[in-house]
Amino acid sequence: MNTHLLAALDIGGTKIAGALVDGIGRLLVRAQRPTPADRHGSVVMDAVRAVLGELAEDPRWARVSAVGIGSAGPVDASTGTVSPVNIPGWRDYPLVRHVREAVEGRPVVLVGDGVAMTAAEHWQGAARGRDNALCMVVSTGVGGGLVLDGRPYAGPTGNAGHIGHISVDLDGDPCPCGGRGCVERIASGPNIARRALEQGWRPRDGEEPTAQAVARAARDGDRVAAASFSRAARALAAGMAATAMLVEIEIAVVGGGVAGAGDVLFTPLRRALADYATLSFVRDLAVVPAMTGTDAGLLGAAAAAALGHSGGPAVTAGV
Amino acid sequence: MNTHLLAALDIGGTKIAGALVDGIGRLLVRAQRPTPADRHGSVVMDAVRAVLGELAEDPRWARVSAVGIGSAGPVDASTGTVSPVNIPGWRDYPLVRHVREAVEGRPVVLVGDGVAMTAAEHWQGAARGRDNALCMVVSTGVGGGLVLDGRPYAGPTGNAGHIGHISVDLDGDPCPCGGRGCVERIASGPNIARRALEQGWRPRDGEEPTAQAVARAARDGDRVAAASFSRAARALAAGMAATAMLVEIEIAVVGGGVAGAGDVLFTPLRRALADYATLSFVRDLAVVPAMTGTDAGLLGAAAAAALGHSGGPAVTAGV
Repeated sequence: MNTHLLAALDIGGTKIAGALVDGIGRLLVRAQRPTPADRHGSVVMDAVRAVLGELAEDPRWARVSAVGIGSAGPVDASTGTVSPVNIPGWRDYPLVRHVREAVEGRPVVLVGDGVAMTAAEHWQGAARGRDNALCMVVSTGVGGGLVLDGRPYAGPTGNAGHIGHISVDLDGDPCPCGGRGCVERIASGPNIARRALEQGWRPRDGEEPTAQAVARAARDGDRVAAASFSRAARALAAGMAATAMLVEIEIAVVGGGVAGAGDVLFTPLRRALADYATLSFVRDLAVVPAMTGTDAGLLGAAAAAALGHSGGPAVTAGV
Repeated sequence: MNTHLLAALDIGGTKIAGALVDGIGRLLVRAQRPTPADRHGSVVMDAVRAVLGELAEDPRWARVSAVGIGSAGPVDASTGTVSPVNIPGWRDYPLVRHVREAVEGRPVVLVGDGVAMTAAEHWQGAARGRDNALCMVVSTGVGGGLVLDGRPYAGPTGNAGHIGHISVDLDGDPCPCGGRGCVERIASGPNIARRALEQGWRPRDGEEPTAQAVARAARDGDRVAAASFSRAARALAAGMAATAMLVEIEIAVVGGGVAGAGDVLFTPLRRALADYATLSFVRDLAVVPAMTGTDAGLLGAAAAAALGHSGGPAVTAGV
């Protein structure tokens, strides 16, 4: 067993996860630290080093040929820097340089978390074997990534597939990003809950007013709850159809906590898709749940490392 | 002068144009026939043969190494068939096979007209030297195409870049495509004129109520006319921003008759873009007029032929 391994880092606003991943996608060793998101950038980097140090204690660390990082965005793979919205201490932070120093100069590949999730679904999940796909995470936010011509497509800065902030309602509600009517502003979990509450839905006693609670109520026949999911489904469908019109995809994979609502989301989503995916070359677009779950970020970071060692825009179709 | 030449066909609902094109984009010989769009498919094909026959009379025809076709859509480059909306006699019509027979087996490459225009702008126009671009035609309809990773990206069936039929207003007016709130439904020339008329604008005596007339009125200070262009600009900006979020583009090139309105379109377009292109990696998106004009279809068909000889999805990033 002397085959190469990949080290993966999944960096988010609440936790920094790491793993050693083998060539068939098995996570052999794991490490994790909470993200000290409100601290100085160097303290956050110390947590990253702690995760890497724990992984390096494993004897198999010697077989690591490259390191992949999937990070909360925005990222800039062209400069190796990150500016995660939820980690204020990192602005244009030279993450790739610091990680490379911590791993004795091994190649380091950086992608956004949407691209990472997509690479995971393409490698091990519902987009496996598909040449052209959109993968989405619908959760606290809405993120995504693309597979084009058989490979995850990261774009020049590693941010391609940002479906959460395309506007599907040009006169719609202002979005924290500065835009209006963004897919995320309509379809994220908190917005599903907000809309249901505004329309009169109430959670059960002791229940938090989350999208999960709205989904439960919809399954129990609550029309306001179902309508909030239908509205989210229309926004997601319009965004998926737009993606299909622009780059031709055969499948849309949806993961994240909101996708856990199952038919409450997927039934109106597939129905709405027929209203927006109208032209012949987009009409057969399939919508399926994601398969890689909570390990998507680590798997995808490993896939990114396997696909490209440039440290630049690694996971693109043309590189 | 024994270098190879390319034969180009630009097939639309009103005319079928052809040319011999050299390696630096000069159109050496031209031929043209009206499209007998209301006749049997074989009669339309006879017109294509007549154009090719006229080109073949030139002694330089012997130097033609490949034939490129840019066709009104939808096309299916994967099967070599076309079903142009405005040519009812062609439905899943095997255009590539018939053209290949007419050109003694030379390689034939088929792309949609939006992809062709994009290939032209990338080869000779405003997208020259750009690795990631959106090119659009805003005219009777709204079409487009993409440059990704330094090459025109056609997608598996040759239809990528269909920005005219992405929805930017999910509750908006029904579009003839079956969707709602499509960019074309808001921003095409006829819709700019329709909206101005509905709001009380009237053309001068003897003037047709076209987008050009609305542009003239806007330049003369007519607020209703200017507002109709501003609305179109918002839809175009939302579509451009969506494209940038999804695939990361550095420039958006806009051609077609409506773009001829100049500042009446481009000033509100650039202003609106700031409202939708909000994230760091899309904020510097430039918007510029197209440069290749009425020869874009022929130039782009030639570029497609030069880039790929597969007869399949030729002008893609990965082929």
